[in-house]
Order: sequence, then structure tokens, then C-alpha cells
Amino acid sequence: MGRKIEIVEVGPRDGFQNLCDYIPAEEKLRFIDGLADAGITHIQVTSFVSPKAIPQMKDATEVAKEALARHPGLDFFALVPNLRGAQAAKDAGLKKVSNVISLSESHNKANIRKTHEESFAELDKILETLPELEVSIDVATAFGCPFEGKFPTEKLLSFLDVLYKKGIREFTLCDTTGMANPAQVREVVTKVKEAFPDAVFEAHIHDTRNMGMVNTLAAIEAGIDKVQSTLGGLGGCPFAPGASGNTSTEDLVNMLNEMGYETGVDVEKLVSLAREEKAKIPGIYSGHLLNMPVTV
Amino acid sequence: MGRKIEIVEVGPRDGFQNLCDYIPAEEKLRFIDGLADAGITHIQVTSFVSPKAIPQMKDATEVAKEALARHPGLDFFALVPNLRGAQAAKDAGLKKVSNVISLSESHNKANIRKTHEESFAELDKILETLPELEVSIDVATAFGCPFEGKFPTEKLLSFLDVLYKKGIREFTLCDTTGMANPAQVREVVTKVKEAFPDAVFEAHIHDTRNMGMVNTLAAIEAGIDKVQSTLGGLGGCPFAPGASGNTSTEDLVNMLNEMGYETGVDVEKLVSLAREEKAKIPGIYSGHLLNMPVTV
Repeated sequence: MGRKIEIVEVGPRDGFQNLCDYIPAEEKLRFIDGLADAGITHIQVTSFVSPKAIPQMKDATEVAKEALARHPGLDFFALVPNLRGAQAAKDAGLKKVSNVISLSESHNKANIRKTHEESFAELDKILETLPELEVSIDVATAFGCPFEGKFPTEKLLSFLDVLYKKGIREFTLCDTTGMANPAQVREVVTKVKEAFPDAVFEAHIHDTRNMGMVNTLAAIEAGIDKVQSTLGGLGGCPFAPGASGNTSTEDLVNMLNEMGYETGVDVEKLVSLAREEKAKIPGIYSGHLLNMPVTV
Repeated sequence: MGRKIEIVEVGPRDGFQNLCDYIPAEEKLRFIDGLADAGITHIQVTSFVSPKAIPQMKDATEVAKEALARHPGLDFFALVPNLRGAQAAKDAGLKKVSNVISLSESHNKANIRKTHEESFAELDKILETLPELEVSIDVATAFGCPFEGKFPTEKLLSFLDVLYKKGIREFTLCDTTGMANPAQVREVVTKVKEAFPDAVFEAHIHDTRNMGMVNTLAAIEAGIDKVQSTLGGLGGCPFAPGASGNTSTEDLVNMLNEMGYETGVDVEKLVSLAREEKAKIPGIYSGHLLNMPVTV
């Protein structure tokens, strides 16, 4: 048995949220069913955000409730930008949420219209109001910001320290616009794991500059055991061609399985599901296997 | 100054050869000019093959001669399948050719209609008839064959040994259909470098399964200093969608430059050139930067 790597599918949130045409809740649930059938156990099933901001996620409660009902044993969670979202996630039955805060303050303002102080205060409210909820933090722009460029790793360490002191023990390092490179990923992962040895770190790497696979592997080889990706590599905005996308779950699983890692995921089922998704839902799919006319 | 990595552009051969619509020689030469302007010094400018088999390469002599005339200082070479091609390459003024032989005998038969014995005999004829020509060997299917699957590394070592004893000192390990994974690349590269310490090895990795970048980096980190790729990732057959492609030169250079390697190549010029190529020449471009609406 090789080293175990946990695959965290975030397509139902990070893939679908960029699509303008509404995907019916039943369709979303069928993809969650398919992911579960392929052996994926960690799924970010939706996002509890303002339906005005992201109409695609207006069915968050329905999707979360029904997904939990269909797959009671699996690890489902949702992204929440604030206390209101966290409360809605809890009311839908979720035990776990990821709260997103950008390392770059300018990106944080652009993304969720909050300063760092305001985000930290909102997080405090979530932790105080809903102490039974498991809260992880998605650290957006952890490897660089399209507005501010790259940051010294010390800035990330200080940022994590603030969150750690609030009791957070699970962090997702997000390369929001695909600015990282493997050398940087190794350095950052090594340093954060040294600084916070009892915390769990996940990697969420975008494939914008074609480094989705190589950076995710760099994170794994530097010690990260949990990696996020989306089925088909779905992601990015259809109105900004090429500004995608996510690391493709099936391509990643195929690489890891071939290398002898233990993912517990059936890559053939994932490829079939990704092809089905692409046929039904127009979007930017950066994965390769789903386009390949050969079997894996 | 970081470690120096030599970028070998093979797009004018491996990219263009799959395109059905003839690209005028002058157009091909303008891309070679652009590549040279971006700082690429090693270019596989064409292939001396039967124009019946690959009509796109019917202008091999014209392209090679004119490229040499325009860029006398650069390292230009061509692919040749046999003595006839090698003679034509020499007559065009080239000092270096790459002769392709597949590790997989069934692939060798499918590709150049020769058994291993016949290929080795043809190579002997090239070496005897044209002793002044520098001959490297492209080892196709070095990491696996679509017909025969993966081979033990010992088979590759025996194959290289036959060639080494004929005096060959430069080998390109080709992952012809993108079957390699980073663990395999590291193992293979480590073993061949141990077995043939005075030979030069290059890596030529296809991106079929989305491992072009990660496998090329694996080859570099295992000790290979010279890597092949194509501008835009152009490659594969337009009639087999997704069965592309090559590792994209500009994406690869961007990663290596960002990591601190010394490539001597200007990535912005390459991205502009790749975009120009894509606009002019329809094909399968697997690169990301050329599709990205942002600067690098």
C-alpha cells in the first residue's frame, strides 16, 4: 500500500459557481452521486453565498440537505463567506464549513468586500455563534495575488498565526489565479508545516499557467496529504477564455494512482463522469483525460 | 545564476507534421525566426521523410537551408528515419540529425515499417556513409507503448547499449503517447544516467494525460539538462481530438524561469509568438499561457 492521499472534490462549488446558466439542483446532485460512486469521500457540495452575488448557488440548502441524506457517511462541506452563510450551512445539516479569507487584502476586498480586520471579526462571530461547527479557512491568494504580486512566506505565516490563535486547525492554501511554481510550493508547504505541526493543510491549485498537476504534486511531496481539485478541471469564467481553471480531479487521480499513491478513487469512473459533465454542462474543462480518445 | 536548462524546440517538426493543410515554407521560417528572436538556440527545423508519407515536410530542404542561412550560429537539426533522409539533411547543410527508433518493436514497425534489426542496420549505414554527421537517437515509446504497454527499464538499458556501442552519445527519451508518470521518469532517468555517464540525454514528453509539465520537471530534477517541447504545445492529430499534444515551450519556460532555472529564453516573446501561431495555423494547442487573458 502506497502513501494515502485524500482527494477533495470542489467542483460542485468552484466549478459550477462560474457558470452562468443555472444547473438544476437534481443535476448537481447526480454529479455528487457519481463522485461518491467513484470513491470520492470529501466533497465541497455548495457555497452559502448571496443568491444575488452568485445565482448558481441559490439552491445551496436543497443540495446540501439532499446530498447528506443520500450519502450520510461522506465528508461534505460548503464554502461560506460570513456568519449568515455558516448559519445556513449548519441549518442544512452540514457539520463543516470553509470560510474564505484572502492573504491579499486587496483581493479580499474585491472578493468578499471586507478588510482583513472585518474578515477576522466575522470569523470570530462564526466561531462564537456556532461553536459546534468545524471551520477551516480557505487562504485565497496564498501563493500570490493578481493585484499585489507575490508575498514573502512570512506574511502567510503571520496570517495563519492569527487564525491559529482563534483555534483554526485546518487551512487550505489556495493558488487562486495559478501563480505558484513548484519551488515556491515546496518552500511554502515546508514552512507552514514546520510552523504549525498540529494543523492540517490542504492544497487548492489552479491550472491557469499549466502548473496544476506539477504544483499539486509538489505540495504532496512537501508533505500535504489532502488536495483539492474539480472534475474535468471545470473552473474559470466562460467569459475570460483560458483564465481557467482547476486541477482536474481525474487527471490528478490518474497520476497519483500511477505513481503508487493510495487515493481509493476509480479513475475510469471519474473520466466517464467528467465526459458526461462536459457533454451536459458547457464550461471550460482544462482536464486532458476527458478529451482523450483512449482509455486510461 | 540558476542551473542552466537547454530548451529544444521541436514544433517545426513534431507540431507541424500532424497538420494536414500545408504551411508555406516562408511561414515556417518566420516561426523559426521568432523562436530564435525569443532566445531559443536548439531547433528541430524539419524532418527529411517521404513527402508521400508526410506531405507537410516536402519543403524540408528549403526550410533547413534557409533557416541555416538566416541563423548561422544556432543549433539546427532534423529528424530522419533512414539513410536517404540523413543524406538529404546533410546536403541541405545540417550537421546534426536525430534518427528515430522505437523501444517498442511493434511501434517501430507501425511508425517506420522496420524491425529493430532493420533500424539498427539502417543506422549503421548512416554512420558508415556519413561519418561527419552528428547523429542522436530519438528513443520513441521509451516510457511505454500504446500497443505493448510499459517495459522494464532493463529493456531500455539494453536497447541504449546497442546504440552506445555503435558510437551514439546523445539520446532523446520520448514519451510518445504521454504514458509516463513522474516517479517512472525519475527512475528511468536516474538509471540511464548511471549506466551511460558520458552520454547526453534529452527528454521529449507528450502532454496527453496532462503530465507534460510535471514529467519534464521530473526529468530535469533527475539530472536531464536538455528538454524538448513545442511552441503552444502544438501537436497531436487534429482528427483525434485530445490525443495531443506536446509540452508547451512557453509554459515550460515560464515555469523554469519562475523556479530560478536559467533558460535564456524570453517567455513574453514566446507567448506572443504562440498566440500568433494559433491565430494563423489551426491545430491542437495544449498550452495554457497562450490562452490566458493576462500577462506573464
